[in-house]
Amino acid sequence: MADPAFDKLAILGVGLIGGSVGLAVRERGLARTVVAYSRTPATRRRAVERGAADLAADSPAACVDGADLVYLASPVATILPLLAELAPHLRPDAVVTDAGSSKRLIVDGAARLDLGTAAFVGGHPMAGSEEMGIDAARGDLFEGMTYVLTPTAETQPPALARLRGLAAAVGSQVLELDPGEHDESVAAISHLPHVLAAALMMVTEERARAGEPVYELTAGSWASGTRVAASGSRLWREILVSNRAAVLRSLDDCAAALATVRGLLAAHLDDDLEGLLEQIRRRKTEHPGR
Amino acid sequence: MADPAFDKLAILGVGLIGGSVGLAVRERGLARTVVAYSRTPATRRRAVERGAADLAADSPAACVDGADLVYLASPVATILPLLAELAPHLRPDAVVTDAGSSKRLIVDGAARLDLGTAAFVGGHPMAGSEEMGIDAARGDLFEGMTYVLTPTAETQPPALARLRGLAAAVGSQVLELDPGEHDESVAAISHLPHVLAAALMMVTEERARAGEPVYELTAGSWASGTRVAASGSRLWREILVSNRAAVLRSLDDCAAALATVRGLLAAHLDDDLEGLLEQIRRRKTEHPGR
Repeated sequence: MADPAFDKLAILGVGLIGGSVGLAVRERGLARTVVAYSRTPATRRRAVERGAADLAADSPAACVDGADLVYLASPVATILPLLAELAPHLRPDAVVTDAGSSKRLIVDGAARLDLGTAAFVGGHPMAGSEEMGIDAARGDLFEGMTYVLTPTAETQPPALARLRGLAAAVGSQVLELDPGEHDESVAAISHLPHVLAAALMMVTEERARAGEPVYELTAGSWASGTRVAASGSRLWREILVSNRAAVLRSLDDCAAALATVRGLLAAHLDDDLEGLLEQIRRRKTEHPGR
Repeated sequence: MADPAFDKLAILGVGLIGGSVGLAVRERGLARTVVAYSRTPATRRRAVERGAADLAADSPAACVDGADLVYLASPVATILPLLAELAPHLRPDAVVTDAGSSKRLIVDGAARLDLGTAAFVGGHPMAGSEEMGIDAARGDLFEGMTYVLTPTAETQPPALARLRGLAAAVGSQVLELDPGEHDESVAAISHLPHVLAAALMMVTEERARAGEPVYELTAGSWASGTRVAASGSRLWREILVSNRAAVLRSLDDCAAALATVRGLLAAHLDDDLEGLLEQIRRRKTEHPGR
């Protein structure tokens, strides 16, 4: 990318993702100025203290004023209302993107807003964590991660190219997907694991209430399996709700998979069960995940 | 404990658990001699190289000859046949224990064997890992972990006391449980998480075969949720089969929990969904797991 690639980056929402974008951009000199806005004054001040922004703005409009790159990293349910509020204040050549965990509702909604000549392209860096907030932000959060962009037939190629450049510059591999394709796949590999962690906690808690010493017995498999159940409940309500249909499909797929295992075990088809576990073990070894 | 507490520790099966027992006992000087047996000659030699045993024995009978502590750490399905084979060779005052992941079948089976005056007490250190084998063994594996012992009405108090001392000396908290209680609880907090990891892999693999870019999109929640799917398929077949009824009950509990979440999401009961996720988040924060 040209150096610096952007005049002014406006980040709205400086939690884990927004704060990490600010740190990554500032560490790499990708923008002349980075300005942060959060609804919570203490958070935007903390973003400046942590080096995730040069300045804090005290309103969304002030944050995006003059910005050629606008990064919406607020909770998924707030992105469209925020974009509607910002629309009249966008620089004519601004490129606007977001980091929402589901894309169809946001991309469709953005297309119905009047952004003038500014361009919106949906995005989703696959770099979440059960850690939250500006204090968990890291400038290397995106390194080695997949960064999804969800252009549509209406997307202006130069806007897409600028965002591809940003994602690559912070160390990610860019993957372009249709918004609906994105939503189906993340329902299976991101939203479903959160529901499974919740279900494992529910089973554990029921047993504990019945007097079983389950919490005393937990070891590695339980700790891994429930890790993301510590994630914010508001955040996850919004993510699941914003991708409702695809999440329901992924839950049905998972119920079918569990029923397959249950069926083999109940029918004493132990060799078949081992064959299935061995197939799974091989796939997992090939795809350890990031 | 008296120092050294045991004359001779015989370890049969020197994988992750057996090897770690040997390392922990030798590092702490808890036995005068540690002798290891594995069906695979290279494994028993490696156990000596790694310091998990003083000597390797070339038969189970030679391994337990003169041992006052016999530790059965071979795969769960092999424990009873091995104990039957060893019975005529046990020292009259030997204490025998095992590390099998399910206890009812083993404890009941051991009670039907003629061990002479030797004593068997079932055990289960809650310290597994998806890592396997002697090279993954560590002398501190049991530190801070729960070590389950499953005495019955017939258990001789001195034998139980010696094993309590061993578990405490390697750094574990001892928890005495009825074998059936143990099996119900570990079905929920250990065996169920393995099946959930397998189910998440099955859903992912189905999507991949249908052409979805799921492996490119995986991030932290998927990596945690599938971590233990890399475990040995033979090992896990034996564990699930040895605890079949309790595992089936835990799968039914989990299906019900998933149906609860699905029902709230499908019915747009989003506030209730968030309330449930918040309860879960609090429990997980209170019980991060080990």
